[in-house]
Amino acid sequence: MRSAALALSLAALPMFGGQPLTYADGATKLAGYLAKPSAAKGKVPGVVVIHQWMGLTDHERKVSDNLAKLGYVALAADIYGEGVRPANTAEAGKLAGQYRGDRALYRRRIAAALDALKAQKGVDGSRVAVIGFCFGGTGALEAARAGLPVKGVVSFHGGLDVPADFKPGPISAKVLVCHGADDPFVPAKDVAAFQDEMRASKADYVFVAYAGAVHAFTQKEAGSDNSKGAAYNEAAHRRSWQHMKDFFQEIF
Amino acid sequence: MRSAALALSLAALPMFGGQPLTYADGATKLAGYLAKPSAAKGKVPGVVVIHQWMGLTDHERKVSDNLAKLGYVALAADIYGEGVRPANTAEAGKLAGQYRGDRALYRRRIAAALDALKAQKGVDGSRVAVIGFCFGGTGALEAARAGLPVKGVVSFHGGLDVPADFKPGPISAKVLVCHGADDPFVPAKDVAAFQDEMRASKADYVFVAYAGAVHAFTQKEAGSDNSKGAAYNEAAHRRSWQHMKDFFQEIF
Repeated sequence: MRSAALALSLAALPMFGGQPLTYADGATKLAGYLAKPSAAKGKVPGVVVIHQWMGLTDHERKVSDNLAKLGYVALAADIYGEGVRPANTAEAGKLAGQYRGDRALYRRRIAAALDALKAQKGVDGSRVAVIGFCFGGTGALEAARAGLPVKGVVSFHGGLDVPADFKPGPISAKVLVCHGADDPFVPAKDVAAFQDEMRASKADYVFVAYAGAVHAFTQKEAGSDNSKGAAYNEAAHRRSWQHMKDFFQEIF
Repeated sequence: MRSAALALSLAALPMFGGQPLTYADGATKLAGYLAKPSAAKGKVPGVVVIHQWMGLTDHERKVSDNLAKLGYVALAADIYGEGVRPANTAEAGKLAGQYRGDRALYRRRIAAALDALKAQKGVDGSRVAVIGFCFGGTGALEAARAGLPVKGVVSFHGGLDVPADFKPGPISAKVLVCHGADDPFVPAKDVAAFQDEMRASKADYVFVAYAGAVHAFTQKEAGSDNSKGAAYNEAAHRRSWQHMKDFFQEIF
């Protein structure tokens, strides 16, 4: 009884600095998470954070809190919709595949998150970026491809495959790609095709590969077994966060 | 007459913050350039700077001065030897080729520069790095391959070809490669072979490719015509310098 009560009170503790934010794409309700700097003077830049294939989790909440500590307003987006949370990787694969296969829908959900972020008090709508992890990294690149009004996008271990309907177009958002050099889910041919796409689109991009890092290298929950193809990598996590900070310093 | 006198007096001005430093590899005299921070407390890290194929020029002197401003003691190395300065690119190609073809000699010249740097008052010999440009970038990687006692190496638009006698061995120095994404002299196959080499050597490396940058992207003297294969690129220069600063922050 005592330990159950303790667990309950711990669960009720405010583990995170932000709060839920519900917004919408048409009739679809989306359940995001918003984190703000504790003491901001005037308007500050905003960052949309797109989740990996499991949907919005504590990982994205923590990232958003850390962005708020850097002085930005961060919205962890909900791409899938309120209540739509995969129970396992099979479901996650199916859901993520649905959005990867329907880039127009994916782009609309990202645009909805951008609108919700810009509507927040204290956000400078002219200084906004999109970042994402794994599936969300692909989303960040889609934001750039779609010409959404953002200063820049960052993909962390995101899929780099070029959409089937790709037409090189001007990409005005600056692009930072943080890639695990040993990521088995993002093979060298995808990296090469991505760079060709960026060249053809005259995009201003920086591509970084981190030694010994596989998929999901920023996520502690991914464990430490590289042979699984997804694992946490402390050095790659730390370095990519620093490179993102440099990038924000430049674009904001 | 007047303008000749003016030119003479300008040439005599102390344009740089450092001073010449002569050191040796056996019987061969080497004419380097040393820059120190103006107000250092205690011992500080040291950086050897290896020149591009034209030999030690104002470019490396300026880089060394900028490193001194960051708080490091910097030695712009002289790989070719005192008085050995190519008069044109044909001579430069021949000289650089000689050292690229004789890695043992090249490594010895780098080791001599490291010794000369460590012998300087105020240098913490346990915190030393090697950086280099073009031909010198190859040299920085050779320092890592040779297991010279350095914390890290940085290659700026360096050749990434793997030496003919390469055997994967433990590489303990951390490695940062700043690469022009469109460098025609460092083709994709060299990039791939280099990454394979680093993997096989279990090296802790970070590889960065900068959009639209070709060879020599840090050198203003290279002009702005990408079609020549070598050209200055302001964004790549600025970003790679920041990434080097991050890297030094980590290793020192």
